Amino acid sequence: MTKTIIDNPEFQGMLKHVLEEKIPFCHLLGIKLESFDPDHPQISIAMREQLLGNFSQGMLHGGVIASVLDSMAGFAILLKMAQQSPKDDVLSQMKEFSHMSTIDLRIDYLQPGRGKKFFATAEVTRLGKRVANVLMDLRNDSGDRIATGAAAFMLHTKSS
Amino acid sequence: MTKTIIDNPEFQGMLKHVLEEKIPFCHLLGIKLESFDPDHPQISIAMREQLLGNFSQGMLHGGVIASVLDSMAGFAILLKMAQQSPKDDVLSQMKEFSHMSTIDLRIDYLQPGRGKKFFATAEVTRLGKRVANVLMDLRNDSGDRIATGAAAFMLHTKSS
Amino acid sequence: MTKTIIDNPEFQGMLKHVLEEKIPFCHLLGIKLESFDPDHPQISIAMREQLLGNFSQGMLHGGVIASVLDSMAGFAILLKMAQQSPKDDVLSQMKEFSHMSTIDLRIDYLQPGRGKKFFATAEVTRLGKRVANVLMDLRNDSGDRIATGAAAFMLHTKSS
Amino acid sequence: MTKTIIDNPEFQGMLKHVLEEKIPFCHLLGIKLESFDPDHPQISIAMREQLLGNFSQGMLHGGVIASVLDSMAGFAILLKMAQQSPKDDVLSQMKEFSHMSTIDLRIDYLQPGRGKKFFATAEVTRLGKRVANVLMDLRNDSGDRIATGAAAFMLHTKSS
Repeated sequence: MTKTIIDNPEFQGMLKHVLEEKIPFCHLLGIKLESFDPDHPQISIAMREQLLGNFSQGMLHGGVIASVLDSMAGFAILLKMAQQSPKDDVLSQMKEFSHMSTIDLRIDYLQPGRGKKFFATAEVTRLGKRVANVLMDLRNDSGDRIATGAAAFMLHTKSS
Repeated sequence: MTKTIIDNPEFQGMLKHVLEEKIPFCHLLGIKLESFDPDHPQISIAMREQLLGNFSQGMLHGGVIASVLDSMAGFAILLKMAQQSPKDDVLSQMKEFSHMSTIDLRIDYLQPGRGKKFFATAEVTRLGKRVANVLMDLRNDSGDRIATGAAAFMLHTKSS
Repeated sequence: MTKTIIDNPEFQGMLKHVLEEKIPFCHLLGIKLESFDPDHPQISIAMREQLLGNFSQGMLHGGVIASVLDSMAGFAILLKMAQQSPKDDVLSQMKEFSHMSTIDLRIDYLQPGRGKKFFATAEVTRLGKRVANVLMDLRNDSGDRIATGAAAFMLHTKSS
Repeated sequence: MTKTIIDNPEFQGMLKHVLEEKIPFCHLLGIKLESFDPDHPQISIAMREQLLGNFSQGMLHGGVIASVLDSMAGFAILLKMAQQSPKDDVLSQMKEFSHMSTIDLRIDYLQPGRGKKFFATAEVTRLGKRVANVLMDLRNDSGDRIATGAAAFMLHTKSS
């Protein structure tokens, strides 16, 4: 099997740096990249008091869940683009990321967001030249499905 | 005109305390209650670096927008309930708040979230016994419409 | 005031012909164009037994409502395009219509779809080069709001 | 293995009769029940000219897709209820169906709706006492995923 840009440690390191450190709100939430597999990408977030939406019941705020699933969708699209139309170098590949933007997002809240750690995954259901669609999923560390989501993204948003 | 529970400073003070201080994630975002008018409720959020989704372009993260609009929807439903079926006392009225939960949320991102301050408003389009629907809107301090949203909420979630 | 292409009876006649007669499913539903005003576009549909979703309760099927609001969104975008970037001739303007496609659609069902006639309207909340967003609304002949909707459309879908 | 109400030919026959014949709009669309397995329910629809949304390109109207996926969601919930809380008799089980109603529906259109026959399936992601959530999927006879959807339903809507 050929090495792809996705397996490139420099690419993965840069993605981690951008998503975990340089995007301020992702950093504030504490988002961590867990898997770079374009078919099973994964990010996680650890519970902490600041993320609660309900002071008495210990549940994540719905906005935290939306934020994680929106970020998950963008990460999934970036990996799928790197898989399907790899660029020659890491920087060009990273550039795609800054050109995409969420058109819309739907979150279905299935269960109270209780747990110590939460894992999001996503499936890119369409990757067109200009629009991508993604389905997302959030589970807690007991495996309970907390929420599902769907998003549409615009790619290369400069001339939209 | 009769004074309603909504005009009660104790009710407003308690709502401010809960939404601005006691709900950890709303406090983290810096959500402020601006209007208690059940027909034109409003909350605001001030831009700060931690809320950015893009380190170079100065735009709110889409998850911040989703979080503000989800919170706006809950606040709007609470006020509409206080208007249409007021309880005898402030505490009973507040209790309704802890019993509601978001079923689902859709956000449409219309323009980059740039600005110094952002104002959300909402319209409750259905207030049933068990389900409420809300339309939401976010504008920046120049009046640009940044996003719209739609949410369905479950009321009295205890026995759902 | 200058006459625009929207005021052109040939344009309006062609639009009516296409939407009411030539699009088979719109014809099957009985969609009628009621207003070509790009700021207040309107279409209607008359109740008939075939459109019911519930044999005993006389309510429109949710899919009929979704179909009408999806069609309403497309019509609203076409009019807004004709207003904001009018083409030189009617045929070129009409061509825009065949190039657009729905990315996604959300419908909120607020009240049972009872009535003799239903009126849809829409507001185009973004008209970019490649993506448009629309909010839609359906009321019955008593003025009850039956449903609201939100849609994202892709424009010039050929190269998407 | 115990025989359940779902395996009861009378129940299946009644469901077929209601969904394929007695619900007027489902009958108009030509919806057919293909599988009663509560874990893999399936319905189908055959292409015909009346269902086209585009006279030249041979694609299903987006509203047809929304209608099929909305119907699919209701059917999936009914089967899941019969599996998880079976009633003593067929009629009581069927009654659940007339008490449910769509709160909201989101459809993501992934590919042009081309094909001779289309198959929908669904997964019930939450079945509460009052609210159910469903994810839906539509494929054509070549296996291409045409659309995905998400819906929230209210159960026992009488007192909502």
